Amino acid sequence: MRLSRFYLPTLKEVPADAEVVSHKLLLRAGLIRQLTSGIYTYLPMGLRALNKVADIVRQEMDRAGAQEILMPMVQPAELWKETGRWEFYGKELLRFKDRKDSDYCLGPTHEEVVTNLVRGEVRSYRQLPLNLYQIQTKFRDEIRPRFGLMRGREFVMKDAYSFDRDEEGANKSYWSMYQAYAQIFRRLGLKFKAVEADSGAIGGSFSHEFMVLAATGEDTIATCQECEWAANLEKAAVICKVLPCTDNCSPFTVVDTPGAHTVEDVAKLLGVTTRKVIKTLLFDVDGQPVAALVRGDHELNEIKLKNHLHATDVRLASPEQVREWTGAPVGFAGPVDLKVRILADQDLCGDTGYVAGANQADKHLLNVSLSRDVEVEAYADLRTITHEDVCPRCGKGVSLTRGIEVGHVFKLGYKYSKAMHATFLDENGKDQTMVMGCYGIGVSRIIASAIEQNHDDGGIIFPPSIAPYEAALISLGKSGDAVNAKAAELYESLRAEGIEVLFDDREERPGVKFKDADLVGYPMQIVLGGKGLERGVVEAKDRRTGEKAELPLEDFTKAFKAWRDEIWAGWGLERP
Amino acid sequence: MRLSRFYLPTLKEVPADAEVVSHKLLLRAGLIRQLTSGIYTYLPMGLRALNKVADIVRQEMDRAGAQEILMPMVQPAELWKETGRWEFYGKELLRFKDRKDSDYCLGPTHEEVVTNLVRGEVRSYRQLPLNLYQIQTKFRDEIRPRFGLMRGREFVMKDAYSFDRDEEGANKSYWSMYQAYAQIFRRLGLKFKAVEADSGAIGGSFSHEFMVLAATGEDTIATCQECEWAANLEKAAVICKVLPCTDNCSPFTVVDTPGAHTVEDVAKLLGVTTRKVIKTLLFDVDGQPVAALVRGDHELNEIKLKNHLHATDVRLASPEQVREWTGAPVGFAGPVDLKVRILADQDLCGDTGYVAGANQADKHLLNVSLSRDVEVEAYADLRTITHEDVCPRCGKGVSLTRGIEVGHVFKLGYKYSKAMHATFLDENGKDQTMVMGCYGIGVSRIIASAIEQNHDDGGIIFPPSIAPYEAALISLGKSGDAVNAKAAELYESLRAEGIEVLFDDREERPGVKFKDADLVGYPMQIVLGGKGLERGVVEAKDRRTGEKAELPLEDFTKAFKAWRDEIWAGWGLERP
Repeated sequence: MRLSRFYLPTLKEVPADAEVVSHKLLLRAGLIRQLTSGIYTYLPMGLRALNKVADIVRQEMDRAGAQEILMPMVQPAELWKETGRWEFYGKELLRFKDRKDSDYCLGPTHEEVVTNLVRGEVRSYRQLPLNLYQIQTKFRDEIRPRFGLMRGREFVMKDAYSFDRDEEGANKSYWSMYQAYAQIFRRLGLKFKAVEADSGAIGGSFSHEFMVLAATGEDTIATCQECEWAANLEKAAVICKVLPCTDNCSPFTVVDTPGAHTVEDVAKLLGVTTRKVIKTLLFDVDGQPVAALVRGDHELNEIKLKNHLHATDVRLASPEQVREWTGAPVGFAGPVDLKVRILADQDLCGDTGYVAGANQADKHLLNVSLSRDVEVEAYADLRTITHEDVCPRCGKGVSLTRGIEVGHVFKLGYKYSKAMHATFLDENGKDQTMVMGCYGIGVSRIIASAIEQNHDDGGIIFPPSIAPYEAALISLGKSGDAVNAKAAELYESLRAEGIEVLFDDREERPGVKFKDADLVGYPMQIVLGGKGLERGVVEAKDRRTGEKAELPLEDFTKAFKAWRDEIWAGWGLERP
Repeated sequence: MRLSRFYLPTLKEVPADAEVVSHKLLLRAGLIRQLTSGIYTYLPMGLRALNKVADIVRQEMDRAGAQEILMPMVQPAELWKETGRWEFYGKELLRFKDRKDSDYCLGPTHEEVVTNLVRGEVRSYRQLPLNLYQIQTKFRDEIRPRFGLMRGREFVMKDAYSFDRDEEGANKSYWSMYQAYAQIFRRLGLKFKAVEADSGAIGGSFSHEFMVLAATGEDTIATCQECEWAANLEKAAVICKVLPCTDNCSPFTVVDTPGAHTVEDVAKLLGVTTRKVIKTLLFDVDGQPVAALVRGDHELNEIKLKNHLHATDVRLASPEQVREWTGAPVGFAGPVDLKVRILADQDLCGDTGYVAGANQADKHLLNVSLSRDVEVEAYADLRTITHEDVCPRCGKGVSLTRGIEVGHVFKLGYKYSKAMHATFLDENGKDQTMVMGCYGIGVSRIIASAIEQNHDDGGIIFPPSIAPYEAALISLGKSGDAVNAKAAELYESLRAEGIEVLFDDREERPGVKFKDADLVGYPMQIVLGGKGLERGVVEAKDRRTGEKAELPLEDFTKAFKAWRDEIWAGWGLERP
């Protein structure tokens, strides 16, 4: 493509409303434009990158035996009522009425639609396993859409759904998708990690998230420094460290702590370490009060609490609820004599002599022993892992790194097939319920995460497998001169060989062309002109490393192809 | 692809709710499934056909210099308010509120969004012309969705928008798209006609519809029996035939016509031909009463009336309005002494001695002369063309045929660019308004129309360019026998050559396999087994003609390719 005929409106200024680097660069490089909050148009260059990602996803899904379909974006409420999600799915589910006053929603996911499709037609075990996927535009009415393609409201997703006759088959489907995902992210040229994850609102029995590693990622993941274990914080299991008992057998006593609302305030005031303070957090769990205790130097993990309680809705108590349940303002809750269900993190087990809130304003208790003074319903893993913890699999050290969730595989089990009666007849003619899995990839988010992982001050550095064009050909000549003529000739010969090259044939200064090529991030740059051309060589630059090579003008295409293989190899990629 | 691993749920029964043949066959052949009224899922086979169509559209759009983008489906109300369409677009525009109570709609078309995109960034004449297109899912909340993919609510469309600096450029863009469309429909293998069309609700100055010819088409088009002229009924200009005056100079008289509500009743009762009866139709035109007169043997064309009056909203008067305006019940309205604006079809000009309603129940007038008795505001072309009319271009005979609208090109002019201030600076630094065009193709509707045009009792007959698979390979063998082994070998050799073949390797009777292959409509069938195989030949069947050929098993792929070229040629197609 000749850039003079290509719609690529690059921007010199950093757009004011863009916070993260991928958002800034996607706008500046002319890949996307915002229509309204969380809703974007893909310009030609952005769409090319999006299609590159989609194609790799499609190829690997097909290779894994999944079959592509296309389901509607507008979905009738009836199906969502069958699974109960019409009620339980929050405001992210955009609901509306059609002209006949029937209820519909814009699909944020398609479990109901695909289960409805399959239950109507798959009746025999001979038709299973079945794995159907689509690459489609979805909508989630995010409360705070932000970061461009990272957390938009309208986005492109690949979602796949597997149907199996039994657990064994479902596990096989699951791991086949897991492998396909790993292969997809490898081919995308991204550094990633598959981590154990919580199944969340979609439900199901086990799941992994695929995280693109980037310092700017919204999520934190825990990885073992030795073995392959990795998990997100919601899931990362903590190995209990029982502290030595510091019991001095004294009964608890009340102490004044005026204005000390936080663990840090209390610890400082009383001259103890934060780990000797019990943090008492109150929650409204499906309408009932629950107190959760963790050590002052730890963070409670709400998802772990929710999962432990098999709860639907867990929210921090309001100041009014805290006062009602404890008789004290926020900051002075404690487990002693508290008349609600009490759960404690496992690390609180064993040790005694704790400081805790006294359920009175400006007062705390000293010398609290949970085993003696409190009726704890259960000690469980309720806190978030830290870098001081150890790998739950091998016991070695744990590192915390940042990542961006770009894929998620779930084993759903019977959740949807049971609710929607997706059954089949087995060999014995007996009705059986299908076992399901679902598998998502954020196709548009991958573009953003690739940029978060690969950029520099000059702009985007696209992995060659998803770059809108593999190479930019920059002519340093002017309209009508020999350099431009030679560049046009080279362009045609590259094109004839099927090489995706963008020819910057604009009447612009070389500086502008270099800047734009760096900004858009074509992995390879070919520069034609100057003294090199006189010597019969062409400059070729690796966008990632900045390294330059000189390729002979004679039989250039052949030399370029060899050099291109090196660039791909530098990314750890093989050309397909 | 092996059919044993492919999700193709064909149906033996004709689905009860499917009225037209394409709808029936799309369901029976397992290409689509309904989710809810007017909303469908594309199963793997249907999606393949859809993608084939989309690819051809994409290639020709790219070749014509248009650039692909992807705009959102969810659009903010603000933009539609700028052009006034938030008010004027009817209930087909599905409107809703997001969680922040802002107004949005599901995009039925993208003039506002694309004009907003371009006005923000295209500032110089040097950036024009620009033609942006997308292939995207759209939503129109049809009052009566029907006929499967023919008139759905959610559908896939290609829409393109051109921006030019002046009329000359806009005309060039228009005709370039016209040519691209013709090439697209040729490559799709469809018999079609480009017809002059009304610009309708989208607005603009001139337009053509591309109609796929099919007896089952919803639209009627008029074509000249000699020249290239063709138009849809809303647009087809009628050449005025002035009838010889039959004036007998008598004044009009009242005559009793009890219970004669219709033209036919009146003509019969009074012993005249229907063409001597004036049909007086009353309309509410933007809130004002208007009477439109046509000869009793003609049909008034509402679009022509609407265009003549430059009206926004034209609707037939209610019985109450008829009584209020004429003083009589429906069936007895007439132009004499009628106190509303009166327009007459041009064919009523000249002749006299008409029968007309008397504006009294059960009474008509004889000997009406419009020029003497009625104040007619204008005589104009207000009626629908008939096969008795002549071509407005060359005067030769006119034929009426049925068609399905699959494409539409509009020259929009300044309608949107003016309302939304899409301007650019010309060479003299002066602000100018862009001239726009818009160009739509119903990608999913093309599938339906291809089937309406190409089917038989056995099922679909896909043109090879859009068939989900070019060929079906049917093995008459059984699991583990030599025929099946040979078929598998052939399948692999065809695949290796990049031939898109579906291998029916199921354990089914030959009859079932033949029926399914006919039903899905692969243009070529390769049948392996029986005596042919013993003789070293393979049977190849042309789905369209039913003609069979014998191809040598030896070097089969080569023979198949030559035969395939013949099949394509039979469709008037060249393999790309």
